[in-house]
Amino acid sequence: MRTGSHRDEAVALDERSLLRRRRDLFVLPPGVVYLDGNSLGALPRGVAERVRHVVEEEWGAGLISSWNSARWVDLSARVGAKIAPLIGARAADVHVGDSTSVILFKTFVAASRLRPDRRVVVLEPTTFPTDAYVASGVARILDLEIRWCDPADPVSSLDEDVAMLALTHVDFRSGAMYDLPALTRAAHDVGAVAHWDLCHSAGAVPVALEDADADVAVGCTYKYLNGGPGSPAFAWVHPRHQDTWDQPISGWFGHAAPFDMEREFAPARGIGRMASGTPPILPLSALDAALDVFDGVPVDVLREASLSLTDYFIDLVDRRLRATFEVLTPRERDLRGSQVSLRHPEAYGVVQALIDRGVVGDFRTPDVARFGFAPLYVTHADVYDAVEHLVAVMEREEYAHPDYAVRNPVT
Amino acid sequence: MRTGSHRDEAVALDERSLLRRRRDLFVLPPGVVYLDGNSLGALPRGVAERVRHVVEEEWGAGLISSWNSARWVDLSARVGAKIAPLIGARAADVHVGDSTSVILFKTFVAASRLRPDRRVVVLEPTTFPTDAYVASGVARILDLEIRWCDPADPVSSLDEDVAMLALTHVDFRSGAMYDLPALTRAAHDVGAVAHWDLCHSAGAVPVALEDADADVAVGCTYKYLNGGPGSPAFAWVHPRHQDTWDQPISGWFGHAAPFDMEREFAPARGIGRMASGTPPILPLSALDAALDVFDGVPVDVLREASLSLTDYFIDLVDRRLRATFEVLTPRERDLRGSQVSLRHPEAYGVVQALIDRGVVGDFRTPDVARFGFAPLYVTHADVYDAVEHLVAVMEREEYAHPDYAVRNPVT
Repeated sequence: MRTGSHRDEAVALDERSLLRRRRDLFVLPPGVVYLDGNSLGALPRGVAERVRHVVEEEWGAGLISSWNSARWVDLSARVGAKIAPLIGARAADVHVGDSTSVILFKTFVAASRLRPDRRVVVLEPTTFPTDAYVASGVARILDLEIRWCDPADPVSSLDEDVAMLALTHVDFRSGAMYDLPALTRAAHDVGAVAHWDLCHSAGAVPVALEDADADVAVGCTYKYLNGGPGSPAFAWVHPRHQDTWDQPISGWFGHAAPFDMEREFAPARGIGRMASGTPPILPLSALDAALDVFDGVPVDVLREASLSLTDYFIDLVDRRLRATFEVLTPRERDLRGSQVSLRHPEAYGVVQALIDRGVVGDFRTPDVARFGFAPLYVTHADVYDAVEHLVAVMEREEYAHPDYAVRNPVT
Repeated sequence: MRTGSHRDEAVALDERSLLRRRRDLFVLPPGVVYLDGNSLGALPRGVAERVRHVVEEEWGAGLISSWNSARWVDLSARVGAKIAPLIGARAADVHVGDSTSVILFKTFVAASRLRPDRRVVVLEPTTFPTDAYVASGVARILDLEIRWCDPADPVSSLDEDVAMLALTHVDFRSGAMYDLPALTRAAHDVGAVAHWDLCHSAGAVPVALEDADADVAVGCTYKYLNGGPGSPAFAWVHPRHQDTWDQPISGWFGHAAPFDMEREFAPARGIGRMASGTPPILPLSALDAALDVFDGVPVDVLREASLSLTDYFIDLVDRRLRATFEVLTPRERDLRGSQVSLRHPEAYGVVQALIDRGVVGDFRTPDVARFGFAPLYVTHADVYDAVEHLVAVMEREEYAHPDYAVRNPVT
């Protein structure tokens, strides 16, 4: 590893960072530069002890009584309240539970039901696949039509037939970010509902849902929110819609009085009606502990740290590898999230060779290498080291190693 | 505590039990008689270490690579294979993931779609509330009609308008058990699909789904399967339906090739198409470890142990408290699951007073005290002690304590 003036520059940037002590709140394996927090966030230090406590004390010793004594019964709401400030929401307006796909099914149906006289939902064709798959299932069951918009110009697909504009705030492949307030206004201008997928923005990019007057948002908690593999997703519904919000999976935990065991369904007041089944206490507890790493961090500080990292990465790639990679992510700060994607025909091998060198990014078919910069634990020194390794991988053609001919099930 | 001949009798029964060493596989708090495993199963000893390993090693150290190296990607299928022998299914036919309510939504929709020309679904009005609530949401979205049957005679509600007969194998309140093979045949006789809820039977009562030629079954894993609070539910679909099985929440993990990131949804072959979102690795891992307590236990041994416990409990209640409680659970062995329910106007106070004495059952509105007998860790001595405490609670009128006037959120 070269230790010239550039790396000193990186270390100096880290020393000036307002978040420089936050990395200590994470467990990171030694010798690894982890740039895949946009896929699976690193482990916050407090999680292991909290999970141990939940398993051994709350479940093992407390048994059924922990529904009351450990307040399992409102854990979802308490976790939602911790996510709220990261997305510009009020504490009482965020629900947590179910996978992102299941939550999307509920919110797509409920949002479409807000405009029962309209039959078109607008999505971008480059959205994360599950959004498209879930929307297709919803369209079939509600007899709606999906209109695929031009990703560069969603507004041109809006008209007064549109019930819902469903966009992903930050694109999973390119890292490009939409203007959430402007597109929300455009949806409202034609009387449509604005539905936002925050999977690749929550926890890294400021989101001002209520200020932007958005209608509904859904997000993943195992990326920048560090909730652990497959941790439950969240949903926010604007307060103006909550009392008429009509999600389709009416289960007992979304009932106004679950333990009255009535036969007729009566939805809970407020965001609680987004619940369906018994809440998943283990992963909710892990997420609850994980969210403590955001305590006292203003989202604009988070954003500035993230931009500093992505600026630096793009700058180094430009300096060292301009002829080799196409930077897929927009260079304009306002148009990108917290990842940078590089395009190369050998992207799969490039990512694998980097992983073998301890630099973890990931690959997205057909030709994209993604690098995520979680601002709480990625440093400028990490960025510097990653680019040095990337240069070496390209110079030595390590991406062509025969081991990479057979791809892993998960890429 | 009385230590007369009766308790010796109980201890002797335990010594003869084929399952007598299984209790050691659980962590049970000292001084507690736990008769609520029908609501939340006790903690199997292997779970804490497995969860620690998943958090610290697989997530913390392995990070994203654990999707391949720790085989997170097929964990749901591996857990399903462990549940299969307990429900008379083949290893490849059981899916695990999502809450019971969400799974019910998927299977109710998919099962109804098997009979697109029929508009009636039959349920029993005393079913667990979430089944009724979810069915009402499904009926609305698919324009179906719910026909509530006579719980004592579901067959009289069947005719050729019926798409699906959806019954709960063991009733959550009374502990009464339906004849699954006979009712499956009755559904098939009118061309309807037989849908079974195994929440209160899987892990305690033999279920022979494929032998009975049932169509689809769903069950909870945090009761007799000891998966932990809110652990994910399972679903079984008969192999004859799998290739046309059309569940509504088409998410990326149910896709034939999730990482190809295609825009069009193409369902996975087999039971894998029941998946929607990213699988919840923490609770799936806990459940995976928990299921090891069933290793090498034939279901008929489990059933005989369960019946011996419920027989003994009913017998002691008859001997000591015949005039005080109505035994709501059928006395015929073939008609009951693994719990016994007692009816009393002061049932809430009775349950609370027992809990204060270390005997944990639960209350179901309006007047039912439930006692579950998980055969792997409940002993005849527990049963004996529980009834002794129950006698004391009634003699001393402890149920009338003013502390019990305000009810807990979860009862």
